[in-house]
Amino acid sequence: MEQRISLVTLGVADVARARAFYERLGWRGQEVEDTVFFQAGCLAVVLWGREKLAADSGVPGSAPGTAPGTAGTPTGGDAAEQRPPAFGGIVLAHNVRSAREVDEVLAAAERAGATVTRAAATTFYGGYAGTFADPDGHLWEVAHNPGFTLEEDGSLVLPDFGTGG
Amino acid sequence: MEQRISLVTLGVADVARARAFYERLGWRGQEVEDTVFFQAGCLAVVLWGREKLAADSGVPGSAPGTAPGTAGTPTGGDAAEQRPPAFGGIVLAHNVRSAREVDEVLAAAERAGATVTRAAATTFYGGYAGTFADPDGHLWEVAHNPGFTLEEDGSLVLPDFGTGG
Repeated sequence: MEQRISLVTLGVADVARARAFYERLGWRGQEVEDTVFFQAGCLAVVLWGREKLAADSGVPGSAPGTAPGTAGTPTGGDAAEQRPPAFGGIVLAHNVRSAREVDEVLAAAERAGATVTRAAATTFYGGYAGTFADPDGHLWEVAHNPGFTLEEDGSLVLPDFGTGG
Repeated sequence: MEQRISLVTLGVADVARARAFYERLGWRGQEVEDTVFFQAGCLAVVLWGREKLAADSGVPGSAPGTAPGTAGTPTGGDAAEQRPPAFGGIVLAHNVRSAREVDEVLAAAERAGATVTRAAATTFYGGYAGTFADPDGHLWEVAHNPGFTLEEDGSLVLPDFGTGG
């Protein structure tokens, strides 16, 4: 797994409210299907509904104490220690160049001690992605999205979605 | 506020365990005072104790329903709607080039509807930083750290801490 982040997705209660906040700070993004994408240097910051983000990551949305990952977590200690924190509202994404690479990174993460919370599958946007939780429950989506450019150095460049912002 | 992220800090229960996980995935970082820094493209991914991270951000560490930001949050609705989610375990950082710029960005964020959870102050590492929560409780530290290089394009470059990894 290369040492980089492609997207940081912030789960929000109200996409319009969140977008307005970041625009008041001077940020400019593009909205596609209730999702706002901001190019931020070598990665993208994304605003998406918190419950949708949790569901897309294969974890419960909010109730504490019900987070996944207890089964199969290779750490010691009792159940309370093993249980990762509830959904924190942020998901990191690591984009790769092929569907096969998605499978490879997810398998490597699982061998390293991660819990796959959503098995890799084709996505509604025509890509292929799965999600793992690290030992502390931090979520990483591993994705191949043919619509996003990955530069040689791993930087992610958003397309012009053609939505006029 | 420029459209970029300088650091993504993951709060972890056990820094050594978390570091070992990311190293099994092939990542290489530097450890300084129980904090691990990974250069990840234009930003850094940092591992730090979850409770320390929460305290440093001016928010309660874990108990749900006790998150800050109720007072002064300029959104409508009742108290339950105004209360941001509990600490999610991740803090984003936006590094700037001077202490004055820290004050300016925090003030702009507050005007835009953020809640300042930790007023700007000098830090133990010789910098100057404060933290705000966006309307969904996502935490941003705004920091001037003279030890980190900010490139012209806003990329953050970690120094060689000289700790041998």
